[in-house]
Amino acid sequence: MHSRLRPLQHKEPKKFFQSTGLYAVSIMRWTFDKMTGYGADMNEAKWMTRILFLETVAGVPGMVGAMLRHLRSLRSLKRDHGWIHTLLEEAENERMHLLTFLALKQPTFFFRAFVLGAQGVFFNLYTLFYMMSPRHCHAFVGYLEEEAVKTYTHCLHDIDSGKLEVWRNKKAPEIAINYWNLDADATMRDVVLAVRADEASHSHVNHTFSEMQAMDKNPFAAEDSQIIP
Amino acid sequence: MHSRLRPLQHKEPKKFFQSTGLYAVSIMRWTFDKMTGYGADMNEAKWMTRILFLETVAGVPGMVGAMLRHLRSLRSLKRDHGWIHTLLEEAENERMHLLTFLALKQPTFFFRAFVLGAQGVFFNLYTLFYMMSPRHCHAFVGYLEEEAVKTYTHCLHDIDSGKLEVWRNKKAPEIAINYWNLDADATMRDVVLAVRADEASHSHVNHTFSEMQAMDKNPFAAEDSQIIP
Ligand SMILES: [Fe+2]
Ligand SMILES: [Fe+2]
Ligand SMILES: [Fe+2]
Ligand SMILES: [Fe+2]
Repeated sequence: MHSRLRPLQHKEPKKFFQSTGLYAVSIMRWTFDKMTGYGADMNEAKWMTRILFLETVAGVPGMVGAMLRHLRSLRSLKRDHGWIHTLLEEAENERMHLLTFLALKQPTFFFRAFVLGAQGVFFNLYTLFYMMSPRHCHAFVGYLEEEAVKTYTHCLHDIDSGKLEVWRNKKAPEIAINYWNLDADATMRDVVLAVRADEASHSHVNHTFSEMQAMDKNPFAAEDSQIIP
Repeated sequence: MHSRLRPLQHKEPKKFFQSTGLYAVSIMRWTFDKMTGYGADMNEAKWMTRILFLETVAGVPGMVGAMLRHLRSLRSLKRDHGWIHTLLEEAENERMHLLTFLALKQPTFFFRAFVLGAQGVFFNLYTLFYMMSPRHCHAFVGYLEEEAVKTYTHCLHDIDSGKLEVWRNKKAPEIAINYWNLDADATMRDVVLAVRADEASHSHVNHTFSEMQAMDKNPFAAEDSQIIP
């Protein structure tokens, strides 16, 4: 089983915007780990809280980037070159991660209040930073998604080593089976694998965007099958 | 030819939020008409300025609605029930209208500055109002789109009555032919017809949304062919 856990593609920070992004992510991750007691002794409940929180935050950057590029296209009277679609796909994909894990467990009132506050802060900060430098923001998301891949890899190890017996055998929720087109007998392990693959893709896309000019054509848009406005 | 210009579906305002929406649109239209000298003696240049300006504004509401519903879904940990997709389609559709007309003519510096200011005001006001009452906002857009249908109908009459000879014979831009899948020899008249059909659809969709509860299922989402998160 472990052979399916491929090593993570890490982007070596070479430019200033990459070091900044990596540094910001490292500080945030360290703080969040300390606050929530992340470590070797995780159980299903701790994993669930951690994942739900991270996924409520993860849906913000794609939507902010898409909105700001849409508005810029409208007011600058220029094309977008296909970035908006990919950013919206990322945003919806993260929201599907959230809804998938929510199908397992409804969170507490305290958790809900925390999510509310976190979105208020993160949405405003990210919007502000994206207006100042999209490049820095995409590098930041690129490294954030690398951490997501690490987290889900840790989760897979915990499933395989027997620490999360419930998830190993638990059937994947209906919404996940439909969304990723999983087998009817798929388990939560398959869901975590699918989610981790999404995060790796977000990381690659955002690192790529961070090294492009704002008006370069999005290399992830399917040129032949769609108009790239 | 005129037989193809079907009468406009007008939504009779019955509820308070509908009267408010209609009233706001009427004031805005009257003011804008006076400012830009809209009337019987239009020519290609005047039409172009009017259409370009309206389309830069028209792309805002769909994106704002989609973003706010996306963020609400993330922080409330609840499904969206399929509205986001339809709102994003509206936003992109309006941006395609803009890019289509831009293919004919690049606007002046003065016009660009005006668009910049208008978006700053309209985006902020619309976001604020949508946070207070989505219902009022959708009714407002419903009536705004009715005006768009009237405007494009007027434009079609001007084309057919010979006042816009250039547009009657002018070939549709490539981007429009691809987007609406028009015939290779389509003219600007065909483009205006296609755009008007879009506006009528936006009007119907927004009037419908204005009369729904925020958590009702979007009746315009294709249930069998997509997941409605
Ligand atoms: Fe995610
Ligand atoms: Fe992600
Ligand atoms: Fe339009
Ligand atoms: Fe419209």
